[in-house]
Amino acid sequence: MEDSYSQWYNDLVIKAELAEYSAVRGCMVIRPYGYAIWEKMQAALDKMFKDTGHSNAYFPLFIPRSFFEKEASHVEGFAKECAIVTHYRLKNNEVNGGIMVDPEAKLEEELIIRPTSETIIWNSYKNWIRSYRDLPLLINQWANVVRWEMRTRLFLRTAEFLWQEGHTAHATMEEAVEETMKMVHVYAEFAEKWMSLPVIIGKKSENERFAGAIDTYCIEALMQDGKALQAGTSHFLGQNFAKAFDVQFTTKEGKLEYVWATSWGVSTRLMGALVMAHSDNNGLILPPKLAPIQVVIIPIYKNDEQLSLISEIAERIKKDLEKAGISVKYDKRDTQKPGWKFAEYELKGVPVRLAIGGRDLENGTIEISRRDTLQKTTVLQDDITSIVEKLLEEIQVNIFKKAHDYRESNTREASTWEEFVDIIENKGGFISAFWDGTVDTELKIKEITKATIRCIPLSPEKKKGKCVYSGKDAEYKVLFARAY
Amino acid sequence: MEDSYSQWYNDLVIKAELAEYSAVRGCMVIRPYGYAIWEKMQAALDKMFKDTGHSNAYFPLFIPRSFFEKEASHVEGFAKECAIVTHYRLKNNEVNGGIMVDPEAKLEEELIIRPTSETIIWNSYKNWIRSYRDLPLLINQWANVVRWEMRTRLFLRTAEFLWQEGHTAHATMEEAVEETMKMVHVYAEFAEKWMSLPVIIGKKSENERFAGAIDTYCIEALMQDGKALQAGTSHFLGQNFAKAFDVQFTTKEGKLEYVWATSWGVSTRLMGALVMAHSDNNGLILPPKLAPIQVVIIPIYKNDEQLSLISEIAERIKKDLEKAGISVKYDKRDTQKPGWKFAEYELKGVPVRLAIGGRDLENGTIEISRRDTLQKTTVLQDDITSIVEKLLEEIQVNIFKKAHDYRESNTREASTWEEFVDIIENKGGFISAFWDGTVDTELKIKEITKATIRCIPLSPEKKKGKCVYSGKDAEYKVLFARAY
Repeated sequence: MEDSYSQWYNDLVIKAELAEYSAVRGCMVIRPYGYAIWEKMQAALDKMFKDTGHSNAYFPLFIPRSFFEKEASHVEGFAKECAIVTHYRLKNNEVNGGIMVDPEAKLEEELIIRPTSETIIWNSYKNWIRSYRDLPLLINQWANVVRWEMRTRLFLRTAEFLWQEGHTAHATMEEAVEETMKMVHVYAEFAEKWMSLPVIIGKKSENERFAGAIDTYCIEALMQDGKALQAGTSHFLGQNFAKAFDVQFTTKEGKLEYVWATSWGVSTRLMGALVMAHSDNNGLILPPKLAPIQVVIIPIYKNDEQLSLISEIAERIKKDLEKAGISVKYDKRDTQKPGWKFAEYELKGVPVRLAIGGRDLENGTIEISRRDTLQKTTVLQDDITSIVEKLLEEIQVNIFKKAHDYRESNTREASTWEEFVDIIENKGGFISAFWDGTVDTELKIKEITKATIRCIPLSPEKKKGKCVYSGKDAEYKVLFARAY
Repeated sequence: MEDSYSQWYNDLVIKAELAEYSAVRGCMVIRPYGYAIWEKMQAALDKMFKDTGHSNAYFPLFIPRSFFEKEASHVEGFAKECAIVTHYRLKNNEVNGGIMVDPEAKLEEELIIRPTSETIIWNSYKNWIRSYRDLPLLINQWANVVRWEMRTRLFLRTAEFLWQEGHTAHATMEEAVEETMKMVHVYAEFAEKWMSLPVIIGKKSENERFAGAIDTYCIEALMQDGKALQAGTSHFLGQNFAKAFDVQFTTKEGKLEYVWATSWGVSTRLMGALVMAHSDNNGLILPPKLAPIQVVIIPIYKNDEQLSLISEIAERIKKDLEKAGISVKYDKRDTQKPGWKFAEYELKGVPVRLAIGGRDLENGTIEISRRDTLQKTTVLQDDITSIVEKLLEEIQVNIFKKAHDYRESNTREASTWEEFVDIIENKGGFISAFWDGTVDTELKIKEITKATIRCIPLSPEKKKGKCVYSGKDAEYKVLFARAY
């Protein structure tokens, strides 16, 4: 981890069997253990979306080429790196005996694999929205999307990834802005409560905005190597897509107006954030709320007779814990030694490990070990359910606190350019600094230091100052960092 | 429904807002109400898969062309009607100011959008399976797939559809066969218990087998127009894919052997089956276990004062029903009349409707109406929770029984070819008849009557007879029907 953070990350994702690269360039296979975490994320987010009034739906994977042409900045942002379907049939290759694209089966208009679905969705909304009675329209989609990235990294940047994309339609600008803000706060709550990941909510600078948005809000997190990671975005789209797809509605007063829009999304990128925020050199550290296995029980035995006595206790404890809603695995495989199993479940980030040995049989005790601090204690078997319940909550809070402390001690003020460069080069983390508000300055800072404006925090200090780079008048401070 | 079943079906799917065609040829949009039913199907199936030891994972959308070439019958079945990605970038079109495919961004090897994932998955399994300890591997994937069908129909046959595909690997043939049978029975249980859809479990004839399978098992259902519908399939793949992708494992005895495989799937096609099995001219009839709204409450009022008295009761009833785990909508919109609402929720197939009017306020009563029989009764408000609970169970059973009775009275024996043709032309439904077991006879029957062998039922009558078409010796009877 200290030698090469990026190598450590890649190895960990593969060794912990979260994901691996596939035979298709830039595409990953999400393995069962990784997918189980993603399913827990999905379930929690889906509930939050439904609790805020949204319904799920499903729109086509394909987007006709011409749809992208309708929103100018959108095409600029997405259509240039995408997978394009041009044909719909293969045929036998007479030359080599294999198969080949049938040149006669060429599509009249090419289809783009969705990199995001604003265009295909607003093309449907056109038929669904007639009057103010049809609004708001609050829809979410769980789907796969494709962006033809040249440099890929498991979970963080892959050609195909899984995500959810919310697409809402509103009668007024105020309502759409309110929805945009509501959803970025939903994301922040999910990150902090479920992932134990502290985030900063803010607005993107013009340069970092979503292609087609008026405003993009985001949650930004800090990884353990001092680099920032954008973990979710919520866009106020104004009337851009309504105008591109001619979606108008009749107001209560009988006037015809364009609809206001938002879109918002998080993806399997969150899996990468989860790994990088908490893990250590022993492996994953998972927040209990997202851990597929919350407690593992391992027997330490000399012979079959002892194993059967231990198993009796372990099975009872397992049942008690499961009754309390805790997911438990009892691993009594005889093909692996206890030490191997200890390492294996540390690698997999199982929050709590229970071990029962010969002495525990005599004393009615059990060894309990927490993954986050690696601390061990011996407790009475009778108390185990309430102890584990409390410990799981404590771990959830503790890893949040640890990540929060790390972020606090790695967020620094820079009032001069020398300070700025020094922090970026030698310390990393977030830099809070005055910015003159121009794209020009932002791009120059990026060119020199590779640091970008991660966000303009929601409630910036209002006192004025001088831009850390240009020295020009600045209205507020922003957060800079090198980022994933 | 009586005039044109297929028009009725299409209209109903659209009017009930389950799905609609999109701007992309043959692709559908699944609307929130339809998707909510699909989510309930997914949740029930997913639990059944996990209860039988399976885990979810996710494999890439794209399959390299060369992968298809590795399994000869598989390519024959699938690669000929598929969406093919040939390029990865668009560029500005200097001529018309739009965008166009960048000819310089051509892929070296084309990528096929998965029509099914055996090949890409077995390419991964090759790296995951070393020894008998790694087996069985029991994995399921929820995904979208694409088959470039020329004639499409909402839910029943669309270019893109949603499904799950299970892919398992086993050490022995016996285990793989057992898994194949287990999963077709899981599907049958789901169809009957959740969808109230009676099905026949059977084996496919060679001609109707999955491309690449040794044996295909299926569940077959009968729709209200007398046509059959294949609702799910489970394939015993033998060692075909293991050999194509060279997946071998070390046995306990230290020998190297090819792995045995199964795959099994159901899709959004089930939505079509659900609609066609139960609905009537008033709209959908949904089994309570899959209905997004199980109970709707509608107020019938003369003035605001009355509405507020009714609302008080309705909200209390809603809360009580929800406590019992029932999903309830109270529709007090003032923009629509009660009669309009009655028709609307009949169209949407809500199993139970409660109506409260002025007289009910005086008498402490409530009108309860069931969607399946359209019967109404008036009951005491105090008893409503237990009455609704019982009624929902009754509806679930009753629509199963109705569909079952329909199938029984539309399954006929044909001992002569004249009988066979008469039934197919004039009555429809299933025909049980002797078949000589040859592809030749099967294809001739299909050519003349459009009827296909739906399945060889699991426990066929063993007495021998003469083939209904060829008059040759036949070992068993099979089920014929025209099918979707």
